[in-house]
Amino acid sequence: MIDIAVLPAFLFHVNSSSTLLGMAEGGEASIKVLTTSVSVLLIVILLFSCTFGEIALRIGLPTVLGDLVAGLLLGVSALHIIVLEPGGEINGTFIHLIEIITGANQNLIEQVLNSSVRDIIEKYSDSGVLILLFLVGLESDIKELIKVGTQAATVAIIGVVLPFLGGFLGLTLLFQVNPLPALFVGAALTATSIGITAKVMQEIGVLKSQEGQIILGAAILDDILGIVILAIVVGIVEQGKIEVGHIVYLVICATAFVLGAVILSQFFGKWYVSVLEKLKNPNSIFIGATIFGGLMGIIARALGLEPILGAFAAGLIIGETDKTEDLQKKIQPFIAIFTTIFFVSIGATTDLSLVNPAIPENQDGLIIASFLIIVAIIGKTLAGFAVFSQNQINRLAIGTGMIPRGEVGLVFAGLGASTGALPPSLDVAIVLMVIATTFIAPLLLKIVCQSLTSSSVAESEA
Amino acid sequence: MIDIAVLPAFLFHVNSSSTLLGMAEGGEASIKVLTTSVSVLLIVILLFSCTFGEIALRIGLPTVLGDLVAGLLLGVSALHIIVLEPGGEINGTFIHLIEIITGANQNLIEQVLNSSVRDIIEKYSDSGVLILLFLVGLESDIKELIKVGTQAATVAIIGVVLPFLGGFLGLTLLFQVNPLPALFVGAALTATSIGITAKVMQEIGVLKSQEGQIILGAAILDDILGIVILAIVVGIVEQGKIEVGHIVYLVICATAFVLGAVILSQFFGKWYVSVLEKLKNPNSIFIGATIFGGLMGIIARALGLEPILGAFAAGLIIGETDKTEDLQKKIQPFIAIFTTIFFVSIGATTDLSLVNPAIPENQDGLIIASFLIIVAIIGKTLAGFAVFSQNQINRLAIGTGMIPRGEVGLVFAGLGASTGALPPSLDVAIVLMVIATTFIAPLLLKIVCQSLTSSSVAESEA
Repeated sequence: MIDIAVLPAFLFHVNSSSTLLGMAEGGEASIKVLTTSVSVLLIVILLFSCTFGEIALRIGLPTVLGDLVAGLLLGVSALHIIVLEPGGEINGTFIHLIEIITGANQNLIEQVLNSSVRDIIEKYSDSGVLILLFLVGLESDIKELIKVGTQAATVAIIGVVLPFLGGFLGLTLLFQVNPLPALFVGAALTATSIGITAKVMQEIGVLKSQEGQIILGAAILDDILGIVILAIVVGIVEQGKIEVGHIVYLVICATAFVLGAVILSQFFGKWYVSVLEKLKNPNSIFIGATIFGGLMGIIARALGLEPILGAFAAGLIIGETDKTEDLQKKIQPFIAIFTTIFFVSIGATTDLSLVNPAIPENQDGLIIASFLIIVAIIGKTLAGFAVFSQNQINRLAIGTGMIPRGEVGLVFAGLGASTGALPPSLDVAIVLMVIATTFIAPLLLKIVCQSLTSSSVAESEA
Repeated sequence: MIDIAVLPAFLFHVNSSSTLLGMAEGGEASIKVLTTSVSVLLIVILLFSCTFGEIALRIGLPTVLGDLVAGLLLGVSALHIIVLEPGGEINGTFIHLIEIITGANQNLIEQVLNSSVRDIIEKYSDSGVLILLFLVGLESDIKELIKVGTQAATVAIIGVVLPFLGGFLGLTLLFQVNPLPALFVGAALTATSIGITAKVMQEIGVLKSQEGQIILGAAILDDILGIVILAIVVGIVEQGKIEVGHIVYLVICATAFVLGAVILSQFFGKWYVSVLEKLKNPNSIFIGATIFGGLMGIIARALGLEPILGAFAAGLIIGETDKTEDLQKKIQPFIAIFTTIFFVSIGATTDLSLVNPAIPENQDGLIIASFLIIVAIIGKTLAGFAVFSQNQINRLAIGTGMIPRGEVGLVFAGLGASTGALPPSLDVAIVLMVIATTFIAPLLLKIVCQSLTSSSVAESEA
């Protein structure tokens, strides 16, 4: 006789996900929970981000801030609906809603929310930043990037050295922190997070300005430097020495990747697009671009670099053709969904309880965090002023564009905490610094870039 | 000191998915494997489907066949790269490739491929059919659908009764099968799979013809009838009687849903789009449509219906405005990715080893399958001829459009096998019938619809 426990699943199921031939037998209920939960989350994310994005637009702020606020409300700081931390507490009403829709039991729902659903939201978020960087690559001009290369390198290097020294010296001298944890914090202050800046610049239309291209170039170099610094710090922590071989390897890989992208952009992009054009598939260029972007991301990862570097390079290489505008139009809807999920996820994992000064454990962290935030902002802003150029150039905008910290900073915080090298107060301080720079940067950038939209865009546009 | 085992992950990691604040500590390696595997699978799926779609286009076949063949090659029948069956064997070279790219160990890779990666591909596939049905709804005309309602109902009912009786009587009389398994097989023969037909009709541009709308209406009703029949069969198997209360409940839900959609289409669609238009977000209509489509899918599921019914209804309701064309353009790129994954997944889960007549266990199944395939095709074709109309109408096209079986048929096969009500040979025969009708229908449909593109489209277009 039929097992009663599986009956409701079969009675109500007959759903589209079981369409897969041969999949009808197993895992029905959990797939139903999975698809329903992801749909509900997607609706909630879009509803919140649309609402707060609209408010941001109406009061003249970048929509990214709307996404971040939507994430704050949906995430670990408030509603606990988007929970990306393994084993994190999930909103009971949300679980109950999924229970009503699917008829599955709470245990199964919690289990699925805590595994595959989280993975899917992360994959969406991950795709979001890849698509964004691909689009930014498409909209960038490789000749302009090469032209501003030295300036970008100056900004990147000074923007790494100043915050590092500021953080390291400040902590050891002012706060009497030991050299090893101070090294971690200094390193966490170095790397720029490119997503926020790129989105804001794209939205206000200054990505193609000379300043925009310098920021982009510097942020890309920053990402590469961040990986090298990470390798150095890990070497020191693990073996008490710097692993020269591995670092040389990373530098060689990064250089090869950048050079390879520049060379490919000279002939491959045009040839590839012309081949795709010959296909009868009306979406061939879009599909071909997706394949190429994915491939470049994988190559970057295989070399030990970030996949977003690959996506950016792919966009840059394909962007040198006359199909770019059509491609941009086809990518925009993906940005509207997946890049939104990326920024909402950042907000959702931001834990505002760390900022509550009423909690005694927070106070140490808050004081150091305030110091780090100042160092983080001043360090990058000064780097912007290092740009040498006869042209009138908005150096403040460049520095401001480099302010947001992100992934790399958190990896340092995570590594420091897991090795015990960082005391909790410093760990919290790093996270607070990342949060503050992430939220402050779009605001400052919008203000500082006002002048760019009128003057230098027209001048520097190809 | 730092745990050596986690070092490689940190050394190489620093990737975009760790961007999520607070996520830096755990699960790094498995997330890297996850995002890499999904990217590789996406590239492979697009590469194969693009190649075979191109071949299909060049020899004048629907691209769906290209996707199905791509799936056959990538799936359980050949390369074992797309493995959607839990615990299925996965291509060793593919695992090794992921190992090279990510540096993770094989056990972890297999584990991730067998859980979250599979769930993500299924979610993509599921989204693909939802997006397709939303688009089909957008392109459909609710007035035309209501106008052909009675004809669609006739086709649906006759198309359910004939295959059911043909299968049930044929098996009991010709093959001496017991009534209970024969009941299962008969039921499995009833429900049309809408995805294949909708895609083919859309591609050759006959969706809006009178025939296209009759097929669509009949397939939608068929889906609802399928759910009711499933409830009846489950009642008989479980308790030896028909659960009248539950069936009445299902019929009421389905009727309420259809009526609700018709009523909403009269005023809600236009009002909703006009509200969205007032927002400053340039993607507001697209985002609003996504939210509404998702909501309708969830409501359908909560009522015990299929989410694709909700997506179709949402498209129908929003489609009654002047923003439809813009929306279609924004949805097309999603179709190119996700709907492709849906069809490739169908091919990937199709097990061709079942068709090998050299394997003795297959032979019984093959003979019965041949019988079922004939019943499946003739039953639906005859239903097409039941259309009463003074107009010249391509009745053969209507019947042919109803041929592909899918999800519901497989749920019956799965249910029958899991309860022991179906002997293996009948189970295999159902799966073969679903495979054959899925692959034959696009081919027949393309041939039979040739006349539609020239004659009745022009006549019936609003």
